[in-house]
Amino acid sequence: MRQLVIAAHGSRRESSNDELRALVALVSDELDMGFDGVEVAFLELASPSVESVLGDLFKGETSEVVVLPYFLSAGNHVVKDIPEEINKALSLWPDKKITVLPHIGAFEAMASVIAQACQH
Amino acid sequence: MRQLVIAAHGSRRESSNDELRALVALVSDELDMGFDGVEVAFLELASPSVESVLGDLFKGETSEVVVLPYFLSAGNHVVKDIPEEINKALSLWPDKKITVLPHIGAFEAMASVIAQACQH
Repeated sequence: MRQLVIAAHGSRRESSNDELRALVALVSDELDMGFDGVEVAFLELASPSVESVLGDLFKGETSEVVVLPYFLSAGNHVVKDIPEEINKALSLWPDKKITVLPHIGAFEAMASVIAQACQH
Repeated sequence: MRQLVIAAHGSRRESSNDELRALVALVSDELDMGFDGVEVAFLELASPSVESVLGDLFKGETSEVVVLPYFLSAGNHVVKDIPEEINKALSLWPDKKITVLPHIGAFEAMASVIAQACQH
């Protein structure tokens, strides 16, 4: 089984974490074949952590995880913290596969969201 | 004249600021009628600042600015810092109009970007 994990910063404001969870529920409706599910994981300030989400998935039937860093720019969280979490998980689960996508801000489709937002 | 200003955090990594500038060049191609141009402004760590972008526009022929907070969640920058910058500008330019859009992470179109990113 193949799962998508959206790795976000996490906020002290629970309303921000909930906003992301609601968005991910929409993603789940739009996901094409190829994924059995989608989870949110937070780097800090909110739960569940990346470590616990990957652990729970790999303890189950998941053999492969695709991680999408939900960050607008490639700061330390993207360049350093997410790869560290993934290396930690792979050392615990060496027979599993983890693929990391570019951070969300790197996708040109963001330009369309901005343009649509302005017609709001 | 009506301008769009994309208000972003700003990064110590100039490559991240450049990534946003490149994205905004794409936005400019996609913008419908109703806008005469689009500018990027940074809250911190990068130039130009929100204050200087708004000042330059209002010194010119711009009568109205639409500000899009380029943040995934509604933290202090969105809730406090951007409104403060705008109030400061409106006190200097009381005959101008500034509209603030919701932060980019609040738009449901983000779900499509996530779904598309996963088919990457």
